[in-house]
Amino acid sequence: SRELFVLTYGALVAQLCKDYEKDEDVNTCLDRMGYGIGIRLIDDFLARSAVKKCRSYSETADMIAQVAFKMYLGVTPSVSCSSAAGNEFSLILDKNPLVDFVEELPAERASLCYCNLLCGVIRGALEMVHLAAEVTFLQDRLKGDAVTEIGITFLRKAEDRKHKRN
Amino acid sequence: SRELFVLTYGALVAQLCKDYEKDEDVNTCLDRMGYGIGIRLIDDFLARSAVKKCRSYSETADMIAQVAFKMYLGVTPSVSCSSAAGNEFSLILDKNPLVDFVEELPAERASLCYCNLLCGVIRGALEMVHLAAEVTFLQDRLKGDAVTEIGITFLRKAEDRKHKRN
Repeated sequence: SRELFVLTYGALVAQLCKDYEKDEDVNTCLDRMGYGIGIRLIDDFLARSAVKKCRSYSETADMIAQVAFKMYLGVTPSVSCSSAAGNEFSLILDKNPLVDFVEELPAERASLCYCNLLCGVIRGALEMVHLAAEVTFLQDRLKGDAVTEIGITFLRKAEDRKHKRN
Repeated sequence: SRELFVLTYGALVAQLCKDYEKDEDVNTCLDRMGYGIGIRLIDDFLARSAVKKCRSYSETADMIAQVAFKMYLGVTPSVSCSSAAGNEFSLILDKNPLVDFVEELPAERASLCYCNLLCGVIRGALEMVHLAAEVTFLQDRLKGDAVTEIGITFLRKAEDRKHKRN
């Protein structure tokens, strides 16, 4: 049951809004906290999911959506590749459990990326498997968009892909 | 999977430790946040658990331990009544999932009640079913105690008990 988590997350965001006047600073702080969580969560994820190594960015994006989101948030975003180069992906959430108790952002917090922690978590976790990525919200239902969309841009080939698996 | 929750909770406590120098202030803030969560979580709990109205403090304490803790934290504390008057109970946790990633409290945070949010949650939720209670940590493994013990003291008869159920 994730309600306690969702409400606790809300308390965290509310506290940061108290601490920082600018939405950008709250967003940065959430991202940084998420990063710290991601670099620790990856061990749990690998142990629990028993997934094999991904062979492509596309497979990695699918893994995040279908295994990680399912495991930690109970939802499965759809994935689309949004660049010819094959290194940009979108995770599209019809339903975002983290905002279950949020009706709308207050007018004075219009630039807040409420769920920005998730971007940091993904970025941190990817870094621990040697994948550098930029992760940001591209659309957000809390801001009036039709869906919530997280963009992942992989920045370079993974170092560990130099070594072929047996 | 609760690891994301547990790590997010850790980030919240860390932020409050940045915000407040005194442990007492962090503890108070966690309790207050928990209270705000509890008064909202109770609806979810009642809807999801479909429990019947409790007829005694003892039954209420059992419900918190066996249904609520199980539902939201995945553990079941043992319950003991610690007063002849029958209004004081202890929830004893052999395992506290909220501290899974905490090794020990730093020396300068020796008075921190790391999980104090839980006390507030219980207090807030009880208040919404017309039960006033004091909820505090009596023992904490993070502070070297053998177990973690949450004390619940019910403060007066519930108002709604005046009205007998049909």
